[in-house]
Amino acid sequence: MTPTPVTRRSLLGGLAAGGALMVGNGLTGSAPLVSAAGAGGDLPRTADVVVVGGGISGLVAARELARAGRSVVLLEARDRVGGRVLNHTLANGAVIESGGAFVGPTQDHILALAKELGVATFKEYVAGDNVFAANGHTMRYTGTIPPDLSIILDAYIMQLRIDWMSSQVPVAAPWTAPDATAWDGITAREWVRQNTFNPATGNLLLSYLQPTYGSDGEDVSLLFFLWNIACSGNETSPGTFERASGTADGAQDSRFVGGSQLIPLGLAAQLGDIVHTQAPVRRIAQDANTVTVTTDRGPVTAKRAIVAAPPSLVAAIDWDPLMPPLRQQLLQRLHLGTLMKVDAVYPTPFWRASGLSGSGIADSGAVRTCFDNSPPDASVGVLLAFVGGSTWRAWANRPLAERRNAMLQGFAQIVGPQALQPIDYVEHDWTHDRWTLGSPVASAGTGTTTAFGPQIRVPFGRVHWAGTETSTYWAGFMDGAVRAGKRSAEEVLRS
Amino acid sequence: MTPTPVTRRSLLGGLAAGGALMVGNGLTGSAPLVSAAGAGGDLPRTADVVVVGGGISGLVAARELARAGRSVVLLEARDRVGGRVLNHTLANGAVIESGGAFVGPTQDHILALAKELGVATFKEYVAGDNVFAANGHTMRYTGTIPPDLSIILDAYIMQLRIDWMSSQVPVAAPWTAPDATAWDGITAREWVRQNTFNPATGNLLLSYLQPTYGSDGEDVSLLFFLWNIACSGNETSPGTFERASGTADGAQDSRFVGGSQLIPLGLAAQLGDIVHTQAPVRRIAQDANTVTVTTDRGPVTAKRAIVAAPPSLVAAIDWDPLMPPLRQQLLQRLHLGTLMKVDAVYPTPFWRASGLSGSGIADSGAVRTCFDNSPPDASVGVLLAFVGGSTWRAWANRPLAERRNAMLQGFAQIVGPQALQPIDYVEHDWTHDRWTLGSPVASAGTGTTTAFGPQIRVPFGRVHWAGTETSTYWAGFMDGAVRAGKRSAEEVLRS
Repeated sequence: MTPTPVTRRSLLGGLAAGGALMVGNGLTGSAPLVSAAGAGGDLPRTADVVVVGGGISGLVAARELARAGRSVVLLEARDRVGGRVLNHTLANGAVIESGGAFVGPTQDHILALAKELGVATFKEYVAGDNVFAANGHTMRYTGTIPPDLSIILDAYIMQLRIDWMSSQVPVAAPWTAPDATAWDGITAREWVRQNTFNPATGNLLLSYLQPTYGSDGEDVSLLFFLWNIACSGNETSPGTFERASGTADGAQDSRFVGGSQLIPLGLAAQLGDIVHTQAPVRRIAQDANTVTVTTDRGPVTAKRAIVAAPPSLVAAIDWDPLMPPLRQQLLQRLHLGTLMKVDAVYPTPFWRASGLSGSGIADSGAVRTCFDNSPPDASVGVLLAFVGGSTWRAWANRPLAERRNAMLQGFAQIVGPQALQPIDYVEHDWTHDRWTLGSPVASAGTGTTTAFGPQIRVPFGRVHWAGTETSTYWAGFMDGAVRAGKRSAEEVLRS
Repeated sequence: MTPTPVTRRSLLGGLAAGGALMVGNGLTGSAPLVSAAGAGGDLPRTADVVVVGGGISGLVAARELARAGRSVVLLEARDRVGGRVLNHTLANGAVIESGGAFVGPTQDHILALAKELGVATFKEYVAGDNVFAANGHTMRYTGTIPPDLSIILDAYIMQLRIDWMSSQVPVAAPWTAPDATAWDGITAREWVRQNTFNPATGNLLLSYLQPTYGSDGEDVSLLFFLWNIACSGNETSPGTFERASGTADGAQDSRFVGGSQLIPLGLAAQLGDIVHTQAPVRRIAQDANTVTVTTDRGPVTAKRAIVAAPPSLVAAIDWDPLMPPLRQQLLQRLHLGTLMKVDAVYPTPFWRASGLSGSGIADSGAVRTCFDNSPPDASVGVLLAFVGGSTWRAWANRPLAERRNAMLQGFAQIVGPQALQPIDYVEHDWTHDRWTLGSPVASAGTGTTTAFGPQIRVPFGRVHWAGTETSTYWAGFMDGAVRAGKRSAEEVLRS
């Protein structure tokens, strides 16, 4: 299944002519996109709107503006588009992702965009049993909560409470929740401690928190956590813990054929020479009439700017004038998580023959959460582990061979000793990535959402804010990136 | 009482000759120090050591190195030295401070430095009664805890517990405290809630937290809070809540005659053309043999660098190579507080005649904590309020006239209606300051100290870390700045 080629002409009829056209092959490889005009030569000196950041959010914003007839310059620091969305091609040509990958129901915006770009989805493999490894033993189970008698009641009640509490958190204004102050004064960890009998229940929750935030329960406020659960839905179907954490019908329901980076690559192909890579933004200055964005390749002056970058990178820009203190403080308090994605590749997804899904949870070790990450044709078998938060700290700084061994042991605990003999081993640690500085997403500790959260989408003069962190649904996911890109473009078009 | 002039020659015998000599008048004014060689012209291209940041910590580090015969270049972004230490001269010539001001017992390093520089101290005025304003009533009291029957037992037990718990926190390694994980998983706010009967007790604690961190109890972890209390001492006299929060014999025991900025000004005068102002550092690159620090005025290459700047500013530098992920993450999680200092000036310290100290605490309103900030000769009367955390958020963004009125009402609540008629009104909001981005200090929310705290003083290649936040005693205070400056210089000299 190959994506339908799209042309810039057909989708961007309103856009002024000119610029490189990136279609066809540009959509299917995992190679960085560097358009002919994009990486070399001078930047345009002026535009109606300059967009900072070539992840999905910035690309969507740029496309909306271009479609509306505005001249747009998109500036991306890296030599590729996609931000935290990045394909990786295996030896046999199969594609997996080093960054954002999964999609699921109610993620309408990313799914519609993918469909439009001809990027198909396929269901994450869920046939067979999941495995729960705890106290040195393993048990098979189906569904979300492992049927460990010592924790199942605790976990079930915890889930009911989380859903009930998150239903009281308005996604666009979590700081107005009735108990916002109390919930923002306590960590998710402490709330779980107070509301469960068995500490193992809180430990189990890490299998959700570490992949989702790259953090443990002490790093996020209860209010932020509940808001994030509330976000895992859309305008007609409120978020639930089941959807936020689940595989089938949940946030890990499906993946993209050819890898998720086909989406930003497809957008960039449409945008052509609007996209300028290797143009890190160092300074943003505004006056009454213009905003000037200065990169290592020179300045661009526009009427408006949209900044679609992770909070820590936004804070590192030299702002003139300074951002308002409340926003500056918000950015000081939104920290990116620490997360590696680790994939072990096998000749086949051998676990399927044993009636295993490849999904598993462990209460300790290097692999706390794993998924079947095989390509849709199962041409190879791939197991994926998210290594986040305290598990990342335990393993990320050890020698590769030692970590690799621990990961394979962890996979073997879930699917058996065949996991010890991979044909390939791939890891991507986003904390080493200069233009992200962590992953998968920025989260908020205690006190931040109530005190500084209201600033999250407030424009600063001529500067508007995109990026998945600014979304009201599926913040932290690709869907949130699309939503935020559209919303920011609408703001600019209305202004 | 005027400071004894010091000469560079007498104190820096080991330093190579040359450079502007700033003595005498340079020590007593509140004008920015811009040495003739410092602000214009080219920077030296090379040095043994480059120091980033001209606050007390960086200046002390530079002086230690210069005394040891090393060639040093100190780079300061502002047009003045002093960092978060800044004098303000009133109309009658009396000096107050816009930033760090108070000193007290066990702050041996800043006191010795002041003595050496000829900067005298005087006792904060504490004769007479303090005032506690709560529920619309006021009561006079002496000591630290207001004798409100509804809270005094709660507050007394809370203080005992805080002292007992903080005694278990090693100042150089709080992450090794026996209960570090649990204490770092909970906010100071939540711990107080769990351990007090009357919510007013937690509210009272804000009179300490807001001036100390520019934050409320939900912004700091219990472990960070306990560590900070443990820090309020020295190697022979452990920190206590009484010393951290107290006036006489506490952290607010004394002030400096002529204002605290005399200390950085005196250091800069000794350093002469070692100090280069208006040289903001944008990039720090290292290779196997050198470190190159690039400013708006060009690069300086050295064998070692000491970075003595607030964490948020360090994170905004373009690092090549990137800082190690653990340190990058630590910096993402240390947020500066939000704090204004507000001074109202009167012809005399009129409250003294009524038997009032000028110190007070209020349970609400714009002035939650106030002190007598009159100059030593009482040539005018000055009341000082710290407006931090949630109180800062309530007032910092209102129109000046409205805020001024609220502040004066707050002072009047403490010392009577004469406070409504000041002859001058001075405020300084550090969140607007580009080269600080908040005040008084960076603090850590939950999860940060245990997970990333061990990085705080770990050198990064040829780069060593100073700044008050890296001190093991009196972190966040001028004494911590001196200590950190000395320790970083020792590291460099040993290397």
